[in-house]
Amino acid sequence: MHTDLLITHATQLLTMDGGLGLVADGAVACHDGRIVAVGPTADVLAQVDSAAEALDARGHVVLPGFVDAHTHVVYAGDRVAEFEMRLRGATYLDIMAAGGGIMSTVRATRAASDDELLAATRTRLDRMLSLGTTTVEAKTGYGLDGETERRMLRVIEELNRSHAIELVPTYLGAHAVPAEYIGRADDYTDFIVDDLGKLAAEGQPIEFVDVFCDAGAFTVEQSAAILTRARALGYRIKIHADEFAHLGGAALAARLGAISADHLAVTPAEDRAALAEAGVVAVVLPGTSFGLGHAHYADARALIDAGATVALATDLNPGTCVCESMPFMVALACRYTGMTPGEAVIAATRNAAAAVGRERENGSLTVGKVADILLLDVADYRWLAYGFGDNPVVRVIKRGTVVR
Amino acid sequence: MHTDLLITHATQLLTMDGGLGLVADGAVACHDGRIVAVGPTADVLAQVDSAAEALDARGHVVLPGFVDAHTHVVYAGDRVAEFEMRLRGATYLDIMAAGGGIMSTVRATRAASDDELLAATRTRLDRMLSLGTTTVEAKTGYGLDGETERRMLRVIEELNRSHAIELVPTYLGAHAVPAEYIGRADDYTDFIVDDLGKLAAEGQPIEFVDVFCDAGAFTVEQSAAILTRARALGYRIKIHADEFAHLGGAALAARLGAISADHLAVTPAEDRAALAEAGVVAVVLPGTSFGLGHAHYADARALIDAGATVALATDLNPGTCVCESMPFMVALACRYTGMTPGEAVIAATRNAAAAVGRERENGSLTVGKVADILLLDVADYRWLAYGFGDNPVVRVIKRGTVVR
Repeated sequence: MHTDLLITHATQLLTMDGGLGLVADGAVACHDGRIVAVGPTADVLAQVDSAAEALDARGHVVLPGFVDAHTHVVYAGDRVAEFEMRLRGATYLDIMAAGGGIMSTVRATRAASDDELLAATRTRLDRMLSLGTTTVEAKTGYGLDGETERRMLRVIEELNRSHAIELVPTYLGAHAVPAEYIGRADDYTDFIVDDLGKLAAEGQPIEFVDVFCDAGAFTVEQSAAILTRARALGYRIKIHADEFAHLGGAALAARLGAISADHLAVTPAEDRAALAEAGVVAVVLPGTSFGLGHAHYADARALIDAGATVALATDLNPGTCVCESMPFMVALACRYTGMTPGEAVIAATRNAAAAVGRERENGSLTVGKVADILLLDVADYRWLAYGFGDNPVVRVIKRGTVVR
Repeated sequence: MHTDLLITHATQLLTMDGGLGLVADGAVACHDGRIVAVGPTADVLAQVDSAAEALDARGHVVLPGFVDAHTHVVYAGDRVAEFEMRLRGATYLDIMAAGGGIMSTVRATRAASDDELLAATRTRLDRMLSLGTTTVEAKTGYGLDGETERRMLRVIEELNRSHAIELVPTYLGAHAVPAEYIGRADDYTDFIVDDLGKLAAEGQPIEFVDVFCDAGAFTVEQSAAILTRARALGYRIKIHADEFAHLGGAALAARLGAISADHLAVTPAEDRAALAEAGVVAVVLPGTSFGLGHAHYADARALIDAGATVALATDLNPGTCVCESMPFMVALACRYTGMTPGEAVIAATRNAAAAVGRERENGSLTVGKVADILLLDVADYRWLAYGFGDNPVVRVIKRGTVVR
């Protein structure tokens, strides 16, 4: 067999096929962007006659590219001034009064040109790629009006064409109640329910519809109205649930058959069990707790013990988590959410792929899957958690091509 | 005036001269490894006739190189297996029983050749330099015998000659009671007190003498015996104090006039006041709390409010903090120790230089100081804390030479 790319002699190869799928002295061969052989180096070499490009992975861990299953990567501006106010003791209301909070990002995003929005997002995607992320779920939700939400979808579509990272578009019109609808959240909910039908009719590139179900955002009833409509239109659904207050968002995710419920910082045991029972992927976002300097983190240990499929993501956003690093999420998850290094690496790859409906294409290294592959500068995968604060990724392969 | 290097148009220049010393559109000129002009770009350009090399810092923050004032950078081996055991619930005693803990690093360091120890340390220094650290305090303490402690000093000396980073050697024979002296800590203390005299007579390259004063390590009396002897021999002294238990190490530091007291996670108010009163630099090490997944961090806010000079350092070591990143320490300090971004950046530069007796040479950008300078990929210094998990340093200048 002729191949485009052959990686051999990985000190540890993690296929993620049935657990970690750890192979010592492992190899993987790629052709036309797909994996065509994988396993012990000797077995792979027996199948491969030639390779256009070869990488020797001695001393390296080889694993699938990270899937960042929850991001708000498309936005303009920053909120560094608000960050400092918060450190100095400002309350949420103080920050709002100073023009901060999510609405400041909405204003900046509405005011930005397409080119500005593309450039700012591309810079973040470049960093994500260098940190080993090869697939990114990208939400709208800083437009909160018909036009800007559609512009955000166009930006995601354009970057999906022009950037090595694959972007998975999620419509999050229900990220917050915009200034124009203050005190009229039901009216804004009606607007979204109506606009969803138009978005579908226009054939907008949307894979998932998401709602921020929490105190100060959308109630369970409003969330249910939006998500039920989305489901009827054929979209798969996601919920920001239980980040600050336990309203019942996780239980709603289980009831509606969402593909994922995300955050889950204050989810009680009965709702954890409901997620597991319903097969909803539990997406844990420790970067947000860290970003806010919280002592409380989601209990990934309890979610795993309840039988849930747990994924990790960055929640990259300008308010609470300015971090593109999936390796850092692995390090955080092991220290503050009760995961082992093996569980965290599975959560950042295979389970994250499941959280964005890519389990047949991404997240593991098996024959036929997309060849998204990383080489680390360490020889033991547990170093992803043991070391922290730097980038352990030395090579990134996207669809069979070495891009970093 | 002719100069070797001229950096102009920094969006923010932080001189650290009297607070942050923030200059908008700032410049700095270097010659023969020293700063020869600094201030607003127009003022600096009026003094400089020519420059061998010029950097345009538009869009960048320019600040002094980080001084990492507390590290155990010289060691062999790793403790990744012990890290996973701990995540799975193993106690300190379980880990000891499995051959882990500090003694496993002592065994690995004793067994390593000079070349192995040099190579492993050099790799870590390379990462530190890329993350913006230009001066590193480096402790012995993984030998715990006369010969290996001296080998560690030689390794530090050799790296100080051959690596761009300046290393400041600290003798930490009292890092732990070695296996040969188990149950005989007083005897080991006597050995160190005796060996200190020999080290001094041999002219060993030692700037500071340090003791780990804590439960399971050395008592206040043992620490006092060692540090008093060190002081009598002309060494300046440091103390690992109050990391786990409040034995009185910080108060001892104040009493003996130590240059710094380090860790201070459980230091009470009266000891914070004593440090401030005595002018002992309080070195806070949040990476260790993070590395251990602790919810409790040192209270830098209270130390600053008590009037203490507070420095930040990584505590880089294979057991509790596998992290070379000073930017990450700034991000941690702002979220979990109560510092503002400005205080944390001062703590990582000017105050850290004071913690290693380099306040006249390093830690700020004023005429006559060593030209250790960083360019960040951001235009507002508060991004050092606001963003996290990646490396914001794009250029590193050591003694006037661009090294990264």
